[in-house]
Amino acid sequence: MDVSVVIVLILVRWTCSISEVEMVKAESDVSDRLTLESVRDSLIRQEDSIVFSLIERARFPLNAPTYDPSYFSMPGSYGSLVELVVKQTEAVQAKAGRYENPEEHPFFPDDLPPSQVPPHKYPRVLNPAAVFVNVNKKIWDVYFNKLLPLFVAPGDDGNYASTAARDLECLQVLSRRIHYGKLVAEVKFRDEWKHYEPAIRARVLSFHSYYATNDAYMKSVDKKTLMDLLTAPAVEKAVKKRVAKKARIFGQEVKVGDDSDKNKGKYKVDPAVVSRFYGDWVIPLTKDVEVQYLLHRLD
Amino acid sequence: MDVSVVIVLILVRWTCSISEVEMVKAESDVSDRLTLESVRDSLIRQEDSIVFSLIERARFPLNAPTYDPSYFSMPGSYGSLVELVVKQTEAVQAKAGRYENPEEHPFFPDDLPPSQVPPHKYPRVLNPAAVFVNVNKKIWDVYFNKLLPLFVAPGDDGNYASTAARDLECLQVLSRRIHYGKLVAEVKFRDEWKHYEPAIRARVLSFHSYYATNDAYMKSVDKKTLMDLLTAPAVEKAVKKRVAKKARIFGQEVKVGDDSDKNKGKYKVDPAVVSRFYGDWVIPLTKDVEVQYLLHRLD
Repeated sequence: MDVSVVIVLILVRWTCSISEVEMVKAESDVSDRLTLESVRDSLIRQEDSIVFSLIERARFPLNAPTYDPSYFSMPGSYGSLVELVVKQTEAVQAKAGRYENPEEHPFFPDDLPPSQVPPHKYPRVLNPAAVFVNVNKKIWDVYFNKLLPLFVAPGDDGNYASTAARDLECLQVLSRRIHYGKLVAEVKFRDEWKHYEPAIRARVLSFHSYYATNDAYMKSVDKKTLMDLLTAPAVEKAVKKRVAKKARIFGQEVKVGDDSDKNKGKYKVDPAVVSRFYGDWVIPLTKDVEVQYLLHRLD
Repeated sequence: MDVSVVIVLILVRWTCSISEVEMVKAESDVSDRLTLESVRDSLIRQEDSIVFSLIERARFPLNAPTYDPSYFSMPGSYGSLVELVVKQTEAVQAKAGRYENPEEHPFFPDDLPPSQVPPHKYPRVLNPAAVFVNVNKKIWDVYFNKLLPLFVAPGDDGNYASTAARDLECLQVLSRRIHYGKLVAEVKFRDEWKHYEPAIRARVLSFHSYYATNDAYMKSVDKKTLMDLLTAPAVEKAVKKRVAKKARIFGQEVKVGDDSDKNKGKYKVDPAVVSRFYGDWVIPLTKDVEVQYLLHRLD
């Protein structure tokens, strides 16, 4: 046998021994941008957007009619004013191509008009199954029912359209941050696929059993579950601390030539509320997204 | 003559001697909120919104196709993507009642759909002629041609829809701030109507003459022009200083347990650009609105 043929055969055999996981890894590494550091930087930057958006919503009081389905009726429309504003603004942005970016997730994906702009080549980073993970219904629920009443003043100034526009802004930045969990999961998976692969396979069973039977099965599976793998208590504590600090810094009253502590403690949005909301909802929902994504990572 | 009749006659005579200006003043004082302090507080708060919106726009690079009319074509639409997004989002917000509030001014007022929500009783504060003062065309021009190239990075990441949404946000907060000049003018007029009234009457003439003939007439009128009355160099200097400080504080990278100066000088939007834009455009355009409003204040 010719030496070159032997080399080719060895190469072929070596190549075939690369696991499917590694092949996917190589294939989707079209973008060098995806590192744990770049993902973390983006999450940190998104905290600023979330804090800004809450401060801007807090410019208006609660403005309850915005959320009251009986407040107005429009031909061909039902629901509250905020639903109308979110749905119709999403439609405008969909035509302009917003949801072509896999990092963006609409709150009303049904009947969304198609993009009218030339397609853009976003880096292919995620498993195609990512498209089915959308927790916006839950985000909508916790934003309006858990968060909003805690950080806006009671009252009514009539600016319901502007209020709804501000709510949309909050929803969009929260949605973007929480669904960024897909990229977090992808980068963690790539870095530690040897740990994740068995956990995914085991957890898929436990996940199905959880819904089919009861908690008992879950408890019996390997403790190294996906959720354990995805949880870093020290990082989460730091995030909560940082968002509180951002709420203090961005929500203070800035005065020229006055750096005294006179206004200390007066913030446009309570830093403790932001921190608690991150701990109770933003971080857990992000991890939900990570788990949901990883369960399909080997599809 | 009965004593009570005499008293009534005296009262009638006294009432009739109140100038037209004072009557308007009493009539429109429906809201106690309008004081120089409340107007200033609002302008200061709006600075935060402006700085936030610029920082949020700077998340994206220039994304030139957003502004290129040849980038896409949509049935029934012409112009650039940003025009489409602004026009159609304004239409959604108009239906939700945004432009019923006299503090809000659309960029595309033609063909705007009517509000579909029950009317809200906003305090009647301004002279009805205020509705004709709209400098949004100029704001559009300076935002896109003077400001934008100075604070966004070059480049293209394909997020044109999100970019346009961020531009809309910047435009709306700038427009709100600049048109707040109407309220600034109204409160200054109320506080010092004795100075403003003759200036308005004289300036109306000079204003007409300015367009009909040349500068010569203008120079001949009383030096105490409206623009002089409206200009407070010390206040303007403080505003410019404060917005730069806000750009530094809101645009810094916040870290937990690290208040070192390591990141000093690294801001998401250059504070000097914000300050200069305020001095060169925001303040002068606000004063333009003030003058335009005052010229109709006695209509």
